[in-house]
Amino acid sequence: MSAGGTGSAGSARSAPPRVLTVAGSDSGGGAGIQADLKTMLALGVHGMSVLTAVTAQNSLGVQGAWELPAEAVRAQYRSVVDDIGVDAVKTGMLSSAELVETVAELIGGTDVPAVVDPVGVSKHGDSLLATSALDSVRTKLLPVATVATPNLDEVTQLTGVRVESEAGMRSAAAAVLSYGPAWVLIKGGHLSGDAVDFLTDGSEEHWLRAPRLDNRHTHGTGCTLASAIASGLAKGESVPEAVAAAKEYVTGAIAGGFALGGGIGPVDHGWRFGAVGRFGGGDA
Amino acid sequence: MSAGGTGSAGSARSAPPRVLTVAGSDSGGGAGIQADLKTMLALGVHGMSVLTAVTAQNSLGVQGAWELPAEAVRAQYRSVVDDIGVDAVKTGMLSSAELVETVAELIGGTDVPAVVDPVGVSKHGDSLLATSALDSVRTKLLPVATVATPNLDEVTQLTGVRVESEAGMRSAAAAVLSYGPAWVLIKGGHLSGDAVDFLTDGSEEHWLRAPRLDNRHTHGTGCTLASAIASGLAKGESVPEAVAAAKEYVTGAIAGGFALGGGIGPVDHGWRFGAVGRFGGGDA
Repeated sequence: MSAGGTGSAGSARSAPPRVLTVAGSDSGGGAGIQADLKTMLALGVHGMSVLTAVTAQNSLGVQGAWELPAEAVRAQYRSVVDDIGVDAVKTGMLSSAELVETVAELIGGTDVPAVVDPVGVSKHGDSLLATSALDSVRTKLLPVATVATPNLDEVTQLTGVRVESEAGMRSAAAAVLSYGPAWVLIKGGHLSGDAVDFLTDGSEEHWLRAPRLDNRHTHGTGCTLASAIASGLAKGESVPEAVAAAKEYVTGAIAGGFALGGGIGPVDHGWRFGAVGRFGGGDA
Repeated sequence: MSAGGTGSAGSARSAPPRVLTVAGSDSGGGAGIQADLKTMLALGVHGMSVLTAVTAQNSLGVQGAWELPAEAVRAQYRSVVDDIGVDAVKTGMLSSAELVETVAELIGGTDVPAVVDPVGVSKHGDSLLATSALDSVRTKLLPVATVATPNLDEVTQLTGVRVESEAGMRSAAAAVLSYGPAWVLIKGGHLSGDAVDFLTDGSEEHWLRAPRLDNRHTHGTGCTLASAIASGLAKGESVPEAVAAAKEYVTGAIAGGFALGGGIGPVDHGWRFGAVGRFGGGDA
């Protein structure tokens, strides 16, 4: 399947790891495949994308959405995987039951790690997944996930479990794991106190803590985290290694989040190479 | 129109310049809005995107294309411009006469520099613009361009002028300028010898030379150059300054182009921050 990685005459470098996002487009550039591709570039992997839907979106919410037909999703996926190859896949907005099932089947037939971000609603409460698709997420998509990354609202939507404190995150994880992903990362960011996430495969347990940042410009946080995890897995890191590195990256990106538009601004995907890009400088 | 750039409490930094690409999606990640967004991140501006079409594409060619309706293009554009605001716009694949005219009208009503890359066919010869749309490009889109960036095939397609040597580039430029863009950059990369581009507004003349690189992995070169020019204009650079900086950036990206898939691999958008992203290192 993989044809990349072979240097050719005159090529200065070999190919980086390849990561594919299957998700929606956010015109404002802060979330969706835009956040995914920016994260992948920042983390040194080659980012590719299968579009599932196109949204008209900005800092205030989602003003419109156009879903791609399943055949278009399938064609994009096959174009990428059959020629270029992939080292990890990440999913985001999948919109409908038909697209969830199409993507689950495609990922099930591709032998690489898959990070599933079970996106339900946007930061503004706009629905990015039909209610009728929830069962397909539970029974088709989660079983093929290497890591699922629900936030607490998505945990409730998928499992009925409500988490009100850190203590509740273990049972939330167990409820998600019962659907079949190898690992689950429960994102506790909506609880008060430190931003705490809980990673487990049912035996190992990892608590990831970061101080809560006083910055409301967090648009794209979930997409960025999931893409960073996929980037780490594509480089050959273990799940706990990839998740820890991703948490560090997204924490820096949130710290650098900036105002843009009248509502919630984006995280800063370029925070690690500030001086190079920001000031147009040399080749560090 | 512009609401960005104002720091808010708790935000660590002010917003970077904002650049909007209006173009198609390349699933393989090397060209289209993927190349645009990667270029923008690398050059330190906030990248946003209005999708005009979604292609299933890889290193071998374009396997399928799905055009967005004009209302979706209009909605995405308004979501971005009316809330977030823009400092420069860049156009790429516009697919049909209706989309060309829609985008020309939108850009005409937005008072920022516009870089028009009059994409006709892909590197593999796949058509990315209907023949019936050529007249709309000439009479609606070129007149609202601050800079148009045709290659020699696109010059011929738009003006009938065939360029066989550097000497012919002046008349090619005059023919394109007759349609109304403020500046034209004729890309002579398909001629033999050095890679020479010619920039003029009808009075000033700039010849941009770079040694020809022995690297066939050049997928995304045109999108990357046009996006880099738009990024420079968004930062307040003059057209000659932005074009010179963009030429330097794309030359480095071509030097770093790598094999990926069985055909033409992509340029390296991250060449300037090699050590940071590639090796997952610190916060340089």
